[in-house]
Amino acid sequence: MSATPHRPVIGIVGAGQLARMTHQAAIPLGVELRFLADRSSDPAAAVAPGWQLGSAMDPAALASFAADCDVVTFDHEVVDLDALDDLERAGAVLRPSAAALRIVADKVDMRTTLDDAGLPLPPYAAISDAAGLDAALERWPEVVVKRARGGYDGRGVFVARDPAAAREVAAPLLAAGERLVVEPLLRLESELAVLAARRPGGQTAVYDPVTTVQVDGMCRRVIAPASDHRLDEARDLAVRIASLLDVVGILAVELFSVDGRLLVNELAVRPHNTGHHTIDAAVTSQFENHVRAVADLPLGAPDATCRWAVMVNVIGGDGDADPRDLLDGALELDPGAHVHLYAKDPETGP
Amino acid sequence: MSATPHRPVIGIVGAGQLARMTHQAAIPLGVELRFLADRSSDPAAAVAPGWQLGSAMDPAALASFAADCDVVTFDHEVVDLDALDDLERAGAVLRPSAAALRIVADKVDMRTTLDDAGLPLPPYAAISDAAGLDAALERWPEVVVKRARGGYDGRGVFVARDPAAAREVAAPLLAAGERLVVEPLLRLESELAVLAARRPGGQTAVYDPVTTVQVDGMCRRVIAPASDHRLDEARDLAVRIASLLDVVGILAVELFSVDGRLLVNELAVRPHNTGHHTIDAAVTSQFENHVRAVADLPLGAPDATCRWAVMVNVIGGDGDADPRDLLDGALELDPGAHVHLYAKDPETGP
Repeated sequence: MSATPHRPVIGIVGAGQLARMTHQAAIPLGVELRFLADRSSDPAAAVAPGWQLGSAMDPAALASFAADCDVVTFDHEVVDLDALDDLERAGAVLRPSAAALRIVADKVDMRTTLDDAGLPLPPYAAISDAAGLDAALERWPEVVVKRARGGYDGRGVFVARDPAAAREVAAPLLAAGERLVVEPLLRLESELAVLAARRPGGQTAVYDPVTTVQVDGMCRRVIAPASDHRLDEARDLAVRIASLLDVVGILAVELFSVDGRLLVNELAVRPHNTGHHTIDAAVTSQFENHVRAVADLPLGAPDATCRWAVMVNVIGGDGDADPRDLLDGALELDPGAHVHLYAKDPETGP
Repeated sequence: MSATPHRPVIGIVGAGQLARMTHQAAIPLGVELRFLADRSSDPAAAVAPGWQLGSAMDPAALASFAADCDVVTFDHEVVDLDALDDLERAGAVLRPSAAALRIVADKVDMRTTLDDAGLPLPPYAAISDAAGLDAALERWPEVVVKRARGGYDGRGVFVARDPAAAREVAAPLLAAGERLVVEPLLRLESELAVLAARRPGGQTAVYDPVTTVQVDGMCRRVIAPASDHRLDEARDLAVRIASLLDVVGILAVELFSVDGRLLVNELAVRPHNTGHHTIDAAVTSQFENHVRAVADLPLGAPDATCRWAVMVNVIGGDGDADPRDLLDGALELDPGAHVHLYAKDPETGP
């Protein structure tokens, strides 16, 4: 159903900070958003009227939510993928599609798909048993072990400096039937990210690639644009992957620079924390372009509005200081600074 | 009461498009807004959870609304001013103050206050009876008659090309006890507007003055910055008036250019439709700076992020075409264009 004939009602599975920031972008466009929220205290539910409680892992909740929306999109990938296939077969419009979500939600499927298309990846082995692990550990004594599914912000990713440590981490996961990706521990020159927005039919808008600084697997700082001579190469990778996966909405591509080459590390098919600076420092924010793409409206220009921008991710709960006081101090020091609170309690976690 | 010790809960009297746009700006700051809405279909009520129904002319509704907020601000001036005085005496925090609202809500009081402070105004006469009107019409045969209170967007303003027409308009208003402002019909070289944000204690951020194009008393187009050599003079007027009225929040000053002089035509103490372009074309939008000022947070830089910006006010209901189709066409033609729907039905008026 639609509130007006001009704008689809968009349902967002999840009501976290990305959904909250998407609501901010949807208001001027006159696009009505609805949210499937885990809790009434979720960041988007605190600032928007149209939310309902339900789990993204519950097929019945997903079906009843989708029935109230013209188009469904996502603020995270922890969704029952089989239920999404069923919804699409029943006629629901998912942007991005269940197929795209399925690929990016699985580190093995993602690597296989990109490898087959000739896209540059770090060396990897897809592991499902001890023999596969042994073969990988013969090639690379220092490795990173990654769970195929469910990891984010450094969770589900383990650095093993020797084969014994790798086996200790991998054994219980393999015993539980999980698939793993094992990669050699790489000497990273830098990490980059590039975002593209893609509309049904293929119109694509690509943002300036950024340098990202990760601490403990979490993005702590973004510098836009990246100080790198391969910005066009990074942009081209984003366009090729967006087309390959037929993405609708934002695609985020995280890149490693290793031995002078750009290699694809991770993908996300939703607004991404490496693009928050686009709210204040681009003609059209990633959130507005996500809404425009999902609503099948013309995309806005992704161009920067200033020579450079820096995003710092301040995580609450360090010591006694409330991070909001620190942030208000930043406003005092720099009239060009902007604060974007996630509105999450440190206690409730990311 | 306050949801967090770090951010006041701000109540906005009114839930129109300015309140809607203010909500958009309050989300990243983590400032909770509540709205006193006339109707459940009001533009802000459609996108925010915290609204209650009530009239800004109803003292009881204002009092119960203010009791739920730490600070009260406004998206229009059609408010029971005596009730606001009572609220302030009872300890409510109003930003802007009842005194500032009272001055700008009355065209006679506004002119008297600015005149006494030596600020430049067009010639005017404050009229409360037929004798006063006769005296004014002897000085100026062609006049503009303005009701002291209640006019906006060209309502309550009448152009009279001869004394008989002026008397015809004025007589019933004077008979009803209204006070009027009568001004000579001026030959305007141009019209400008300038916005300033002012924080408690006096920190002030002034936006680039803009050229405004009025049609039938309604602002139809804004060009930023104004093509005018007196931008500093316009900025200075805004700072002086903001200080004179001890404004907290946004002050809008509408200026006439007549015979080479800048003269103050109208004031508003709230976000203003001559500043919508600041959402997309300034470091900090007027809405964000209104929230920051009212919440007593440091103001953000008002600087432009591009060389020029144009705002076009598209009014619905002209002919059969839905203005949203026209606007989506603009997005197709110019990837740098942004649409900001007021989300008002043409039927329900401005």
